[in-house]
Amino acid sequence: MAGHGHPYSPAELELPGFVPQRLSQVEILAPFLGASLLVALAVWLVSGRCGGRLSRTDRLLMCWWAFTGLTHVVLEGAFLFTPDFFSKEEPNYFDDLFKEYSKGDSRYAARNTGILALEMITIGLKGPASLLAVYAVASRKSYSHILQLAICLGQLYGCLFYFITAYLAGFNFWVSPFYFWAYFVGANSSWVVIPTLIAVRSWKKICAAFEAGKLKTR
Amino acid sequence: MAGHGHPYSPAELELPGFVPQRLSQVEILAPFLGASLLVALAVWLVSGRCGGRLSRTDRLLMCWWAFTGLTHVVLEGAFLFTPDFFSKEEPNYFDDLFKEYSKGDSRYAARNTGILALEMITIGLKGPASLLAVYAVASRKSYSHILQLAICLGQLYGCLFYFITAYLAGFNFWVSPFYFWAYFVGANSSWVVIPTLIAVRSWKKICAAFEAGKLKTR
Repeated sequence: MAGHGHPYSPAELELPGFVPQRLSQVEILAPFLGASLLVALAVWLVSGRCGGRLSRTDRLLMCWWAFTGLTHVVLEGAFLFTPDFFSKEEPNYFDDLFKEYSKGDSRYAARNTGILALEMITIGLKGPASLLAVYAVASRKSYSHILQLAICLGQLYGCLFYFITAYLAGFNFWVSPFYFWAYFVGANSSWVVIPTLIAVRSWKKICAAFEAGKLKTR
Repeated sequence: MAGHGHPYSPAELELPGFVPQRLSQVEILAPFLGASLLVALAVWLVSGRCGGRLSRTDRLLMCWWAFTGLTHVVLEGAFLFTPDFFSKEEPNYFDDLFKEYSKGDSRYAARNTGILALEMITIGLKGPASLLAVYAVASRKSYSHILQLAICLGQLYGCLFYFITAYLAGFNFWVSPFYFWAYFVGANSSWVVIPTLIAVRSWKKICAAFEAGKLKTR
């Protein structure tokens, strides 16, 4: 908490009226991980009762889409719609969560224009689309793979943009290497690795559908 | 050219060593439009000699992908790889083109971080992918629709980001309403309207391929 009244990097960042974080790292991460596991477990169990039509992969995909959809809408929504989260006198859980995350990327506390634009697109489009994907996979819609691919590409595009803008703007938004690796890289890597895997799978499925169509018309 | 030696908005933008534009609007637009029409015409004529296998729509799509791919790689590449374009003593055509475009969005002259990140993704991924799409449509690859849809979503995502960041950052990057409508809105609207049309078409084709697969396995 140098002279600027906040723990973030760069120190010259102005956060007037900053209210220090009350919850510890564990008090923030445990509820997030616990709630995420509960959502995944609930989707796994409910999807298992769909008369055995769904493969294990489909059920795992549903868990992921429910988790990422709710994260986008609830968590990131709480950030977007609380412009004063760092200065609220009575901060709630989400305010403290984004104070904690800002240790790995202070552009959140600074409400950087690029971050806000990314979050608007994520909350407005990717979140609802992810929740639709849960339904699309469950009911084996013909648009299921194309929808999943579209969201994955959006998530990858967003991550690419997120990392490139950080690099161009100075690459000094984390308190220490720990927060760089744990939050900036670690927490975001799920949204690089998993969308890549799903995008490749959906891409192959779509190509296979066209190949099958070609064989049929020969 | 107020006190800051450049014609852009906002006037307080610092562009040290700014060299005024030499070419007129017509001298910039005519070669661009002429070259674009030549590319489209060449692709249209060559694709017509592909033994009649290609529909008119396919040939039009090839014209578009060739045009947008070359625009992304050549034009936007010239911008990205010339960081000093506004201060070069001997400006070339592309330097003056981006001086002209900056009248509609001075974030180009300012080399705004978000704009640079967008251009990097556009030049590195969307440009080459667009040129691949020309080949994919011509040779009726099974990945043709999915590739086109992926690029279109990337272009739409990019445009959305482009407009939202401008809005959040003050919405004052144009010299006059004329440049706002002609450049910021007008020049970019092609990359909203056409990708939307192609994305909807490819989406339907992909869903139809899955529907056909379902009928087949019944």
